[in-house]
Amino acid sequence: MTVHLGRRYGFPAAHRLYSHLLDEEQNRALFGKCANPYGHGHNYEFELDLRGPVDPVTGRAADLPALDAMVEREILSVFRHTNLNDLPPFRETVPTTENLAVEVLKLLKKAWPAEPALGQVVLEKVRIWETERNICELSA
Amino acid sequence: MTVHLGRRYGFPAAHRLYSHLLDEEQNRALFGKCANPYGHGHNYEFELDLRGPVDPVTGRAADLPALDAMVEREILSVFRHTNLNDLPPFRETVPTTENLAVEVLKLLKKAWPAEPALGQVVLEKVRIWETERNICELSA
Amino acid sequence: MTVHLGRRYGFPAAHRLYSHLLDEEQNRALFGKCANPYGHGHNYEFELDLRGPVDPVTGRAADLPALDAMVEREILSVFRHTNLNDLPPFRETVPTTENLAVEVLKLLKKAWPAEPALGQVVLEKVRIWETERNICELSA
Amino acid sequence: MTVHLGRRYGFPAAHRLYSHLLDEEQNRALFGKCANPYGHGHNYEFELDLRGPVDPVTGRAADLPALDAMVEREILSVFRHTNLNDLPPFRETVPTTENLAVEVLKLLKKAWPAEPALGQVVLEKVRIWETERNICELSA
Amino acid sequence: MTVHLGRRYGFPAAHRLYSHLLDEEQNRALFGKCANPYGHGHNYEFELDLRGPVDPVTGRAADLPALDAMVEREILSVFRHTNLNDLPPFRETVPTTENLAVEVLKLLKKAWPAEPALGQVVLEKVRIWETERNICELSA
Amino acid sequence: MTVHLGRRYGFPAAHRLYSHLLDEEQNRALFGKCANPYGHGHNYEFELDLRGPVDPVTGRAADLPALDAMVEREILSVFRHTNLNDLPPFRETVPTTENLAVEVLKLLKKAWPAEPALGQVVLEKVRIWETERNICELSA
Repeated sequence: MTVHLGRRYGFPAAHRLYSHLLDEEQNRALFGKCANPYGHGHNYEFELDLRGPVDPVTGRAADLPALDAMVEREILSVFRHTNLNDLPPFRETVPTTENLAVEVLKLLKKAWPAEPALGQVVLEKVRIWETERNICELSA
Repeated sequence: MTVHLGRRYGFPAAHRLYSHLLDEEQNRALFGKCANPYGHGHNYEFELDLRGPVDPVTGRAADLPALDAMVEREILSVFRHTNLNDLPPFRETVPTTENLAVEVLKLLKKAWPAEPALGQVVLEKVRIWETERNICELSA
Repeated sequence: MTVHLGRRYGFPAAHRLYSHLLDEEQNRALFGKCANPYGHGHNYEFELDLRGPVDPVTGRAADLPALDAMVEREILSVFRHTNLNDLPPFRETVPTTENLAVEVLKLLKKAWPAEPALGQVVLEKVRIWETERNICELSA
Repeated sequence: MTVHLGRRYGFPAAHRLYSHLLDEEQNRALFGKCANPYGHGHNYEFELDLRGPVDPVTGRAADLPALDAMVEREILSVFRHTNLNDLPPFRETVPTTENLAVEVLKLLKKAWPAEPALGQVVLEKVRIWETERNICELSA
Repeated sequence: MTVHLGRRYGFPAAHRLYSHLLDEEQNRALFGKCANPYGHGHNYEFELDLRGPVDPVTGRAADLPALDAMVEREILSVFRHTNLNDLPPFRETVPTTENLAVEVLKLLKKAWPAEPALGQVVLEKVRIWETERNICELSA
Repeated sequence: MTVHLGRRYGFPAAHRLYSHLLDEEQNRALFGKCANPYGHGHNYEFELDLRGPVDPVTGRAADLPALDAMVEREILSVFRHTNLNDLPPFRETVPTTENLAVEVLKLLKKAWPAEPALGQVVLEKVRIWETERNICELSA
């Protein structure tokens, strides 16, 4: 029996929407107030969609404490209480929700193989809420 | 890199569940108090599911201000603070959440081609919450 | 030991903001689209604030099943799936959230003395959410 | 026109995560405090995903009152205000969210054929929230 | 400048509503299915209302990390993933939301004086949500 | 008949918790990661508590469009999509939720007398949610 699991986390962070490939005026036309030089911020929420068989002994499809520890180490401790623009992956790219989802997924896929406890669990999607009305989802 | 975007909006409206193809008694049996002649109402919420490639310069998959302006013009300004039964599309059909989703999708598909800013963005689904426990989703 | 209890309920209803003491133009200036002749609607939520001593045997401050039955009979069955403007109390007054709160409180205060199960429970406030951003509270 | 419907319900219940196929120490290592002998509990929420054609006369894809009555009889009245470990299906298996989803789906699939009102409605998924951050979804 | 702070926490727990001062039949009449011998459970949420002056240097009215550590030690680690009926304070009294609020407040008031970091902060209220529709508030 | 109204708004912003009256080490001890030089951010929500008599003609206690326009002009357009530390009021004081509430209240009290439409409406409280678990309330 295979099930899908959703596991949800959150972190607050700042960002500024500003592309170094565009000039001031173009950035302002594109991003409006979101391009102001000092940034603004959000309470980001994100959810991982996982797939795996239910273990007949434990009744579980994933070792959630192991997953939580990995997500804390690889994602939450990296992004929580930061300004995204100040982090290496967003020095060159704009920290939109789209690029944040790409980065979160990249970090998780890199860390996954080193987690034997997640052996049979497949990461299917990453979904990020910038606000409750603005969502980005990326398939693994 | 292709992502899925969710964008959520809301509007309050009234409706009456009553089919002109049925008589009074049949309507009452079918819709109960929802068929009362003066209608009732909801704070409708709806979400658009979009799909598109992330622009490498802007980091975005959709021009959200352009999308919002179009949704305001084509959907929100049409349905907000109205009685759905009083609008042309629901003179003949019952304004159930199902038919409301059909109508919202029809309006969006009609308006989409005239929005050059949404050129590469594909509308995938419309999802409407009549209440937080009653949801209808329609694929484009 | 005296505690305060909150008990929350909801019902969907339609309304039209239109004062019979004003002319068309004045109504439109005052209520905008909320004055359209066919009305619109909301998923109303309301909460009762109660106060009472904790019974040392049962550990309870109110007989909630008795309260729920009374609220169903006096409030929910009256307002659920209706158009407020069609109900007697709103034939003369505008069904704003303010007047709805006044009416809900009046109905509850009238019914309260006939409920022996609520003997020591004092109704302190009625709070109504028209939307999650628009709230009216009335002290009993 | 085929649509997808979501219908959401909730019930409070207790459970204890403890596998009879493991010893005390293994259970404690696996489930931590969730294995404490007296159990703990949750306000479970679950959502059914349905698919069906919209009836051109009624504008509906499912007879929701019939669905609600069936869900009340087969699921809610069975699980509401219970300790899951005390129910027959969880005497042998651990009442994790995964196994709860399996059981809810089994009960619904068994009852479905006896509901003529749901004739054209297909049950696609069951989704259970143990908390708002812990979700399990099962395809029918 | 004095402000009020709200700080919210949550924990899952089981309970059974059953008074040892009443017989089986009375308990069943009073608490219904909530009296079933194996209990049921909830995702409890609770909020502390605090009052204190804003420190002109730090801009804060309370040392939230110190408060969180104390609440974790005195409340969350005591109640999380437990069956309330199994805990000493509820061996004699029924673990209703009312009595749970009384107990939480008692524990906090006992621990408060030993927290120098909370020196100027006054605990004003404890508010507990058993469900989002069932709330109990107790003044300190 | 006097009622209390709640009106809720939201804006995203960044901030850095750092006091210029303390040195680096003290700031880090006090604010932890919240003191990182580049800041982080939140989706702030705030609610105004108002009190006023219900107008017998309009059924309203406040001219909400006039209130909304004033709040947009005085608060939302000032704080939305900004880094609070970059705004004049937070050059000297730390932009904690406490100080943000103080500033929002100061701006509203200054603007209030110039709004004839709010003539009889009294501003009672400002309540700000930094996250859904961290709230600050200030009486006017």
